[in-house]
Amino acid sequence: MNGQFGLHQRLMAEALGTALLVATVIGSGILADRLSGDDGVALLGNTLATAAMLAVLITALGRVSGAHFNPAVTLVFVLRREVGLGAGLLYTAAQGAGALAGVAATHAQFELPLYQVGAIARAGWGQGLAEAMATFALVFTILAVRRAKPDFIPVAVALVITAGYWWTASTSFANPAVTLARAFTDSFSGLRLADAPLFWAGQGAGALIAALTDVVLFGRTRPRSGA
Amino acid sequence: MNGQFGLHQRLMAEALGTALLVATVIGSGILADRLSGDDGVALLGNTLATAAMLAVLITALGRVSGAHFNPAVTLVFVLRREVGLGAGLLYTAAQGAGALAGVAATHAQFELPLYQVGAIARAGWGQGLAEAMATFALVFTILAVRRAKPDFIPVAVALVITAGYWWTASTSFANPAVTLARAFTDSFSGLRLADAPLFWAGQGAGALIAALTDVVLFGRTRPRSGA
Amino acid sequence: MNGQFGLHQRLMAEALGTALLVATVIGSGILADRLSGDDGVALLGNTLATAAMLAVLITALGRVSGAHFNPAVTLVFVLRREVGLGAGLLYTAAQGAGALAGVAATHAQFELPLYQVGAIARAGWGQGLAEAMATFALVFTILAVRRAKPDFIPVAVALVITAGYWWTASTSFANPAVTLARAFTDSFSGLRLADAPLFWAGQGAGALIAALTDVVLFGRTRPRSGA
Amino acid sequence: MNGQFGLHQRLMAEALGTALLVATVIGSGILADRLSGDDGVALLGNTLATAAMLAVLITALGRVSGAHFNPAVTLVFVLRREVGLGAGLLYTAAQGAGALAGVAATHAQFELPLYQVGAIARAGWGQGLAEAMATFALVFTILAVRRAKPDFIPVAVALVITAGYWWTASTSFANPAVTLARAFTDSFSGLRLADAPLFWAGQGAGALIAALTDVVLFGRTRPRSGA
Repeated sequence: MNGQFGLHQRLMAEALGTALLVATVIGSGILADRLSGDDGVALLGNTLATAAMLAVLITALGRVSGAHFNPAVTLVFVLRREVGLGAGLLYTAAQGAGALAGVAATHAQFELPLYQVGAIARAGWGQGLAEAMATFALVFTILAVRRAKPDFIPVAVALVITAGYWWTASTSFANPAVTLARAFTDSFSGLRLADAPLFWAGQGAGALIAALTDVVLFGRTRPRSGA
Repeated sequence: MNGQFGLHQRLMAEALGTALLVATVIGSGILADRLSGDDGVALLGNTLATAAMLAVLITALGRVSGAHFNPAVTLVFVLRREVGLGAGLLYTAAQGAGALAGVAATHAQFELPLYQVGAIARAGWGQGLAEAMATFALVFTILAVRRAKPDFIPVAVALVITAGYWWTASTSFANPAVTLARAFTDSFSGLRLADAPLFWAGQGAGALIAALTDVVLFGRTRPRSGA
Repeated sequence: MNGQFGLHQRLMAEALGTALLVATVIGSGILADRLSGDDGVALLGNTLATAAMLAVLITALGRVSGAHFNPAVTLVFVLRREVGLGAGLLYTAAQGAGALAGVAATHAQFELPLYQVGAIARAGWGQGLAEAMATFALVFTILAVRRAKPDFIPVAVALVITAGYWWTASTSFANPAVTLARAFTDSFSGLRLADAPLFWAGQGAGALIAALTDVVLFGRTRPRSGA
Repeated sequence: MNGQFGLHQRLMAEALGTALLVATVIGSGILADRLSGDDGVALLGNTLATAAMLAVLITALGRVSGAHFNPAVTLVFVLRREVGLGAGLLYTAAQGAGALAGVAATHAQFELPLYQVGAIARAGWGQGLAEAMATFALVFTILAVRRAKPDFIPVAVALVITAGYWWTASTSFANPAVTLARAFTDSFSGLRLADAPLFWAGQGAGALIAALTDVVLFGRTRPRSGA
């Protein structure tokens, strides 16, 4: 984060970025599902769109707010004392508000009700384990790549999510705010609200294990950039 | 833009770039539709081709003309007083001429009539809203990324269009000149000429909101590069 | 090209690179066609493989030989007097020999006869026009991008071929040596030997028009790098 | 490799990286196969996921251990005397252990038995030849790209494997540790344990030929970076 941006701008960036991310995840799911009779093809479209938007948003907004767009990421930076607790809570609120705005904006352009009840069941301990692994991979990537090559973070996040959409049994939600939003769409990328707590638990556990792994592997030193 | 290039060269670059962009959008739509029985697969081919060509053209011609290839982008730079009104009008004319030449060139290699009547209906307020969101995302990306990392603009534009082809209900035309061209092809990427004004209105609105958001978020300062 | 490499090494690089390029084009066509019942899916696999290998080969071997792997590219550098006529002829011979070796190596791993008779008809003036446009786009990209951003050439060539596989009616052979090789495989990426001369004529015309366009747009100055 | 990391950390990086690589290869194969009825679509998902994860892991862990994740790569660096024999054996053990852990982790999230008996027959001399070519391409890419542009190695490895999944008759295992792991999954990316020795033989031969080609083409000089 760059000191030249005030908290107000940083929160606006978090809300806008999370809204566009959610709009991309849900919108590409709706369109892909309408166009293709093959769920593998639909997930390819969903993957490309999500990864492309992530790389763009993190590049565009990273220097403003750090481009978290994800409460699990904010949590780790609060624990690492790189973001204060108060700012972290405001970040999370902005991410949640942005995510819910993104749902409505997407449904509007497809001329659907602004909010729907998510209907896809994603239950079972395997799904929780998958979310832990997905979030571990995401958070470890962020921490390790900013030590090795900070400029590559936007692309690295896009790539680890590209992989996650396919290698995890849950298709890598890996983000509590996006998970909340996806409980309000009855489409390809939705889930039942009742399944969200399992996802959040997995995401929190995965993020913490990643933060710990980073300390074990690299020690407690701070990387060069606070992004 | 680099001062070493005269207006004549800049207009030639805008026309050539827009022609190749249109040829890629329409040509890949025709071939993909012929090869595949699945519209999702066809859109994957259409997406890859368009994004790849955008990254190449903006890299190759950016230093000559700024590589707008898009009247909505030119409009924003005229409003920001980075391009004069007269040059902006000439840019738009070159983009329109290039777009129409691109249609004919593409149809010729597929041995089709040089111009056709676009037949795909893309109507309803959702389509207009989708175009506003698509163009907002495109223009905001250009403005924010050139502040953050100007060298990444060619790839960022390719990525935001990759995402746009999937997350917007209209598949992101996001370009008035390309919209005009697509009204003259009766193929996968075409639309009815009667639907074009709704698209143009959405594109103009999205571009203006993006320019405003940029000022609100980043203030009135000029970025380092005028590309 | 780097003066530290002798002609012998440069020819070896051209032969090896062209062989791996041909093996990728033909091999991915065979596998994709076996795996998928949808020709659009097969072309997606063919595209990804070809583009990925091109970016790698040009990066790995560019400083040795310039990484032409393509007689149309060598022709343009001979005309620009950046490569001597004698070296150009040897380059072309190395490319042809490498291309034919690549066919045999590919067929061997699929346990097919080392050489087959290409059977896919690719005739008609539209195909010739498509090859001219495809080769124009390839050569213009090489010339313009090495002026603007030489480090991006390997990726730019990969991207312009990615687009070309989809926007041209001929799927962008755009390379006389690869065209020759593809006349000796009876698989997804093959063509009849009788159709090759039309492709060569289009490729030559496209390359010359690209060289001319470069001079008109940028003038006669040499770019920074001779790659 | 960076001297600041001890052997313990380097082995941890090799094990973690190989585990995540195997989890991606096998997990994406399982999900893709479940989602799609078209094996070409499944291989596209498998390819994207594997390539994306490779680029991330090599960037994140390259400066710790060199990011081999592959006994064939370690073998070449031992022969080049860039890694000692003892360290090389420990690397190989860490890679094998990581690979087997990756299988169990993946099966767990899909709620399958932790280890299965691989059932896909991949026999015949063509498969061995394909593995030799695949590993040749991988190792030659690593050696040549680190001479030309070391920063590009993570992406170059991702790209050469992207191509390899399609141009080789065996879909490019190109890694003895991953081959071992894939013998313990009864899914899209598995193989029979009885076929593994043929793959290992091909991989070893391909790696050695690549190392030799590198010396013939570039001479015995060491590249700038030991990564």
